[in-house]
Amino acid sequence: MDAPNEAWAGPTVGEVGELAVLDRIVRRLPPGSPEVGPGDDCAVVSAPDRRFVVTTDMMVHGPDFRWAWSSPADVGWKAAATNLSDVAAMGAVPTALVIALAAPQDTPVTVLESFADGVRQAVDALAPACGVVGGDLSTSATFTVSVSAFGDLDGHAPVLRSGARPGDVLAVSGELGPAARGLARLFRDGVDADGEPSRAATLASGADTDPDVARQRRPVPPIADGPAAAAAGATAMLDLSDGLAIDAGRLARASGVTLAFDAEAVPEGSALHGGEDHGLLATFPAGTDLPGGFRRIGSVLDRGDHDLLRAGVPVPTSGWDPYADWDGAAG
Amino acid sequence: MDAPNEAWAGPTVGEVGELAVLDRIVRRLPPGSPEVGPGDDCAVVSAPDRRFVVTTDMMVHGPDFRWAWSSPADVGWKAAATNLSDVAAMGAVPTALVIALAAPQDTPVTVLESFADGVRQAVDALAPACGVVGGDLSTSATFTVSVSAFGDLDGHAPVLRSGARPGDVLAVSGELGPAARGLARLFRDGVDADGEPSRAATLASGADTDPDVARQRRPVPPIADGPAAAAAGATAMLDLSDGLAIDAGRLARASGVTLAFDAEAVPEGSALHGGEDHGLLATFPAGTDLPGGFRRIGSVLDRGDHDLLRAGVPVPTSGWDPYADWDGAAG
Repeated sequence: MDAPNEAWAGPTVGEVGELAVLDRIVRRLPPGSPEVGPGDDCAVVSAPDRRFVVTTDMMVHGPDFRWAWSSPADVGWKAAATNLSDVAAMGAVPTALVIALAAPQDTPVTVLESFADGVRQAVDALAPACGVVGGDLSTSATFTVSVSAFGDLDGHAPVLRSGARPGDVLAVSGELGPAARGLARLFRDGVDADGEPSRAATLASGADTDPDVARQRRPVPPIADGPAAAAAGATAMLDLSDGLAIDAGRLARASGVTLAFDAEAVPEGSALHGGEDHGLLATFPAGTDLPGGFRRIGSVLDRGDHDLLRAGVPVPTSGWDPYADWDGAAG
Repeated sequence: MDAPNEAWAGPTVGEVGELAVLDRIVRRLPPGSPEVGPGDDCAVVSAPDRRFVVTTDMMVHGPDFRWAWSSPADVGWKAAATNLSDVAAMGAVPTALVIALAAPQDTPVTVLESFADGVRQAVDALAPACGVVGGDLSTSATFTVSVSAFGDLDGHAPVLRSGARPGDVLAVSGELGPAARGLARLFRDGVDADGEPSRAATLASGADTDPDVARQRRPVPPIADGPAAAAAGATAMLDLSDGLAIDAGRLARASGVTLAFDAEAVPEGSALHGGEDHGLLATFPAGTDLPGGFRRIGSVLDRGDHDLLRAGVPVPTSGWDPYADWDGAAG
């Protein structure tokens, strides 16, 4: 196996043996505080309000990440962060994660250790009360990570995509644009002469230290703003995984409304059409003091001929994306 | 892609497009009765006793199943059944599943439909109140399925591996042996001249209609006996995924006891050493009326020099298997 970066060295999973690998991974993961943790047939997680929210997402080497562009710790961070964001987008507080991972036998053990470090770093930064309560370790020809994340609604109704009402304020929390700009940068500057992802080109071009690339590798979703929005009475909310226009289109269709962006709040460009920032898009009753990092970007109108307007002009919402809609425990 | 059986025909995932694929899969899955089902960032599942149990397991083409030996519906059945069994082994009633699936782009859509049919058949047969509340659909070079399953403890304490006490009765529910015999049959008769799994050899040898092979493909764990054991006061329990001896060794070590099999109740052979039947091994206080399909196979002794005895003779428990221990939301 190539060694795209410094984590790719030393004994492999196949050489070290699964027992030692597992021991080295588990101690690096955030434990959280489950009622029953790893070591039995199941974990037991508390669900104080008699419900739990659940989302699941699989990340596959090739379509979802490339070792030439992301370190193992980046992949661990992103696997945790994107699932935590889906929990937050329901208005829930993340309580636990389970992680299934399959790696080729020739994967260095340090890669799995670094992956676990990235998971821990994301949880520490984004949802420190959360932990990894269980998992599964397998072998595959294709490096694959599958995360399920859980959250508690703390007595609030779940904030669905379908609750926006005409007259509501449309607001967003989190960055818009850097992750998509970072991906575009990698596709432009981080490839070899054949257009293949290349670690060497990423380093030589300076893309490796581009702050936008950092956001592509390690999105920083505003997790705490999800439950804050629920507490403030948000009428609808979703995770911005595919870009503001596409995701706003989903919210508009689910709610049977038209959304209108304020032109000055939503510039043209990657903020409108790029994804993977994992901010939160929400609607609030008019007059709500917007919580946390939420700022107004528009308003909710009666349903018209279009999902989405910007300064009165229709914005394409690029149709329905089944991968993303099935994503996130949506089925 | 080869067509190992009748499900492998017709347009591929890549040809049909993801929207149509998803639509065709979701309608075939058992819906269950979540508070919020597919279509949002998360599903919402009720947790009546303020806790939930969770397990996760990944099945990878190659190490975990072969299309030459299992149909897509078999794989769907097994993915559901093995996770349901882990839930039952805590004494919990299965409430929901989420399923992430990644398939090569050249996979016929009928393969995914058949997979979904197998999931539904398993849920209908084993845990009809359960449903698939969410999922994720991805592309991968390696067909991969990751399931997380959830359950409700209905006010009972979770039945751990660690609670067996000297004087308890050791009991088992479910079949012992057929799944391992079926796998051995496939490795013997279902391979080509190079030892590679072969659909043609499986058919020509008659292995395809061997009832033991059917149990390898579609285990039938006694799901209802898990909560029944908890209600009857089981002191320890676990899912028999790796064979009676290995799994009994785990229970013995976790509980700090020695287990003694009655010789007449546990014959030598695949019943003792073969896995994947997904029965339940449990301990009960002496005098307990054993519930459901549980029958006595031995007793719990003070910890001695060995994990496991049969007719007084030590039985090897084959050491600790980290894959299986990390499995099942154990971490």
